[in-house]
Amino acid sequence: MVIVIQCTDQIGLVAKISGLLAAEGFNILSMHEHVDKAANLFFMRLEVDKQTEGDRPLEQKLHELLPQGALIRVNPDPVKKVIVMVTREYHCLADILVRNYFKTLGATVQCVIGNYTNLADICRRFDVPFHHVSFAGSSAASEKQILDIITQYEHDYIVLAKFMRILSPDFVSRFPGKIINIHHSFLPAFAGANPYRQAYERGVKLVGATAHFVTDELDEGPIIAQQIISADHSHTASDMIKAGKEIETAVLAKALRVVFDDRVFIYKNKTVVLE
Amino acid sequence: MVIVIQCTDQIGLVAKISGLLAAEGFNILSMHEHVDKAANLFFMRLEVDKQTEGDRPLEQKLHELLPQGALIRVNPDPVKKVIVMVTREYHCLADILVRNYFKTLGATVQCVIGNYTNLADICRRFDVPFHHVSFAGSSAASEKQILDIITQYEHDYIVLAKFMRILSPDFVSRFPGKIINIHHSFLPAFAGANPYRQAYERGVKLVGATAHFVTDELDEGPIIAQQIISADHSHTASDMIKAGKEIETAVLAKALRVVFDDRVFIYKNKTVVLE
Amino acid sequence: MVIVIQCTDQIGLVAKISGLLAAEGFNILSMHEHVDKAANLFFMRLEVDKQTEGDRPLEQKLHELLPQGALIRVNPDPVKKVIVMVTREYHCLADILVRNYFKTLGATVQCVIGNYTNLADICRRFDVPFHHVSFAGSSAASEKQILDIITQYEHDYIVLAKFMRILSPDFVSRFPGKIINIHHSFLPAFAGANPYRQAYERGVKLVGATAHFVTDELDEGPIIAQQIISADHSHTASDMIKAGKEIETAVLAKALRVVFDDRVFIYKNKTVVLE
Amino acid sequence: MVIVIQCTDQIGLVAKISGLLAAEGFNILSMHEHVDKAANLFFMRLEVDKQTEGDRPLEQKLHELLPQGALIRVNPDPVKKVIVMVTREYHCLADILVRNYFKTLGATVQCVIGNYTNLADICRRFDVPFHHVSFAGSSAASEKQILDIITQYEHDYIVLAKFMRILSPDFVSRFPGKIINIHHSFLPAFAGANPYRQAYERGVKLVGATAHFVTDELDEGPIIAQQIISADHSHTASDMIKAGKEIETAVLAKALRVVFDDRVFIYKNKTVVLE
Repeated sequence: MVIVIQCTDQIGLVAKISGLLAAEGFNILSMHEHVDKAANLFFMRLEVDKQTEGDRPLEQKLHELLPQGALIRVNPDPVKKVIVMVTREYHCLADILVRNYFKTLGATVQCVIGNYTNLADICRRFDVPFHHVSFAGSSAASEKQILDIITQYEHDYIVLAKFMRILSPDFVSRFPGKIINIHHSFLPAFAGANPYRQAYERGVKLVGATAHFVTDELDEGPIIAQQIISADHSHTASDMIKAGKEIETAVLAKALRVVFDDRVFIYKNKTVVLE
Repeated sequence: MVIVIQCTDQIGLVAKISGLLAAEGFNILSMHEHVDKAANLFFMRLEVDKQTEGDRPLEQKLHELLPQGALIRVNPDPVKKVIVMVTREYHCLADILVRNYFKTLGATVQCVIGNYTNLADICRRFDVPFHHVSFAGSSAASEKQILDIITQYEHDYIVLAKFMRILSPDFVSRFPGKIINIHHSFLPAFAGANPYRQAYERGVKLVGATAHFVTDELDEGPIIAQQIISADHSHTASDMIKAGKEIETAVLAKALRVVFDDRVFIYKNKTVVLE
Repeated sequence: MVIVIQCTDQIGLVAKISGLLAAEGFNILSMHEHVDKAANLFFMRLEVDKQTEGDRPLEQKLHELLPQGALIRVNPDPVKKVIVMVTREYHCLADILVRNYFKTLGATVQCVIGNYTNLADICRRFDVPFHHVSFAGSSAASEKQILDIITQYEHDYIVLAKFMRILSPDFVSRFPGKIINIHHSFLPAFAGANPYRQAYERGVKLVGATAHFVTDELDEGPIIAQQIISADHSHTASDMIKAGKEIETAVLAKALRVVFDDRVFIYKNKTVVLE
Repeated sequence: MVIVIQCTDQIGLVAKISGLLAAEGFNILSMHEHVDKAANLFFMRLEVDKQTEGDRPLEQKLHELLPQGALIRVNPDPVKKVIVMVTREYHCLADILVRNYFKTLGATVQCVIGNYTNLADICRRFDVPFHHVSFAGSSAASEKQILDIITQYEHDYIVLAKFMRILSPDFVSRFPGKIINIHHSFLPAFAGANPYRQAYERGVKLVGATAHFVTDELDEGPIIAQQIISADHSHTASDMIKAGKEIETAVLAKALRVVFDDRVFIYKNKTVVLE
């Protein structure tokens, strides 16, 4: 069973928490904690050896013990529910569908929403519903359509798996800390459109990818994972795109793993990833 | 102040230790722990915000609290004393001498022992004593000479910074867990002599380096740090040697940093590195 | 159009080849060459801007120009035909099936042969024939069955995508330079069975994967690609396996890309990869 | 002997050049070339087995053969002359001084210019002249002083090894393509001041370094080499600085190696690095 805690830092928090768990008969299998001294915040993720039961749940006892305003989750669902949004590129989606099919994603893909139709067939092959929402008309109308689809499905997260349209602040504000995007550059370098073209023009020697939570500032949300691969003068912009796909897939997979595994905390415009 | 603990695992150890520290008025600045479930061992490294004092030291209280046989160090000297042994290659030694000179090594180099004389001059430039011990005659006589030199200096660790002679089991057994070697391959691949030649013949696509504690089995001691760089068909054996030097320097520097910083625990034939 | 050449080295080979191509009206789009001086061998891969035609083919002219015994391929089929063999793990197979489906593999998967049946369904979803060959009985009988299946399909390469049975020297010798395997360690470290268990016991700080051509010496064939990821004391053997899967998939994908793209030359027990 | 060529691209250039070299009796030991098709430029670096001599030098013959305006260097001095400029940090300077002392830098350090005095002693230990130029007063006066020092020494390149003052466009314009800087971020992310602070605030998961030629646009010159290391939430800004030092040293060393080895071509705002 997983327990995650985020609260104001205090002397003796670890002693308090571990003392309570010992008193309640839980054995700690793993414990990761972090203190941001500048922000005076304490973060902890625990795995314990049995599940809670009884009339007075552990979460309540932790709230009594910890500073006011603590965010505490005891025993979050280990299998999350996700909606995936795509445009035309297949690599991130296919990776997600394969892991979903083999039950190694840590989540269930409820449906896929695409603004093109070319990825409908692979969804069908994996028995995952695909909804087509064109952006040919007004963005507002398209977003309305997407919201209508989303409300049909339970979901914990929305994953933008190479969804190439910018979502409105209104849309984004409905799902704070719930939308995960893969951006095809090493942010904050090359935010915005055509990052590989920008990277090519700039003559960089590395190409990167960044998975982050979406906020209403474009490409400025909290970063979850980043990785790079080498590039050189022999890479055209389209070579960079091709090389970038592999790293995008890997970075998004890594980010989803830690998010679905309840290892990611958001504060300020950053993440703490406890693993 | 640093506290390091290695003991048999038990339920509630974290609660006990953090409870004692809170009771004694220490604030925990950082805490890293690891449990090897198979070996039933608990490892912890803490940084707390003040030093111990008074008539009943913290170490004693921890011993009373923890399972019998616990290894506990409270407030180990943050600057270690080291003896460096070399043959002819300069790269690791020079890196150590530079960090020593700028006081960023986490250790003081007491002296350098070399079986050639070409590195005497750089030691002299940094005001570090250099002792020449030829291996032209019998190894036993040379080792005897080295032991005589070593006994002249206080030392916590002996660093083999590209020392290319094999030390006898008798020599090694005098300094258990105290001799650190840099091996120029990704162990256990290419143990023994001429690893780059072996790597070249095998046509590997990566070249590595391994820092490890020395035991009486050649190149088989507990690994502290490893890293690799890419190689390809265009690398001759001597290109691999050249490329390898950079990674050897970096891997040894990393290993020394974590050892001198009291982050490394040895058990079975492995290390736990808490950082 | 691609041209690949492997021959004894000689002074002036580049001048001869580039002169002939200029005379025949080909513009060189890219040229990579390598000389192994110790082996006295010359390797070259060219891309030129048009295809050959006419009554006297370019290959013939190159043979007249180059040293006797030169291996020359002009305009090899850019889409190879492959047979994939698997046991129970899905990650490499799924990656291959996805790329095959989206026509980015550089090859067509003719069929999949598995010694378990759990991967039959994903093959069916991608309309790729799956053949089950049990190894419950004698290996010789199973290999005979596999050979019977293989002969039903045209194929350029056989890919062992986590096929966990050892193929007999007789089987391997029928397909020299045609069988590609992914081994789940950084060869030559941890050859043989259970490499992750071996790596865990040894306490390594990196976990790797190696793609190589299969020869009759187990895990000793020419290496095509290798990569590693970091590990530490917190990785159990099964964590290493999980982490390893990602790198296995990436390394096999990379190896297949360069082999199918006619960038890999085999000689002695090595490869030259021109890219 | 090294030959480097940069010129307008044309069909048959490789044939022409390799033909001339064969006719003149040179054996090509290595050849690297690159064509930027968009820019219509051809780049080549050759190593041949003997040096030129005689009354009609090879450079002249190449000029006759190649398109007008070709940049050709035959037999550039393999040991460059460099002036190093520093502020207070030692890591890049010490690495350069060590390689200089052991004659593995590919260059001779003529002198070091520092705007603080703390690095004078290590220069003295290596018998390298150190000149102190304070920036306490007007920058213009300080730059004038630096120029006076520079004119006392022959030099091919000026290396800014953590020189933390911005040089004026007037200064920079005197040394086009001759000033090499190490910037402590993965450019173009975090250009300008305090990149590690910026990186920390942004919560990035990777920290990088970039070696580039200096132009009059701050941190915008052609990139020679870049590399990154992982960071995470546990890194404070000062941890990032510490981790960054190692990668800065490595990236600058790599950039100097390829520049001093005549492997770097500049065009537009990019480099081609042939190796």
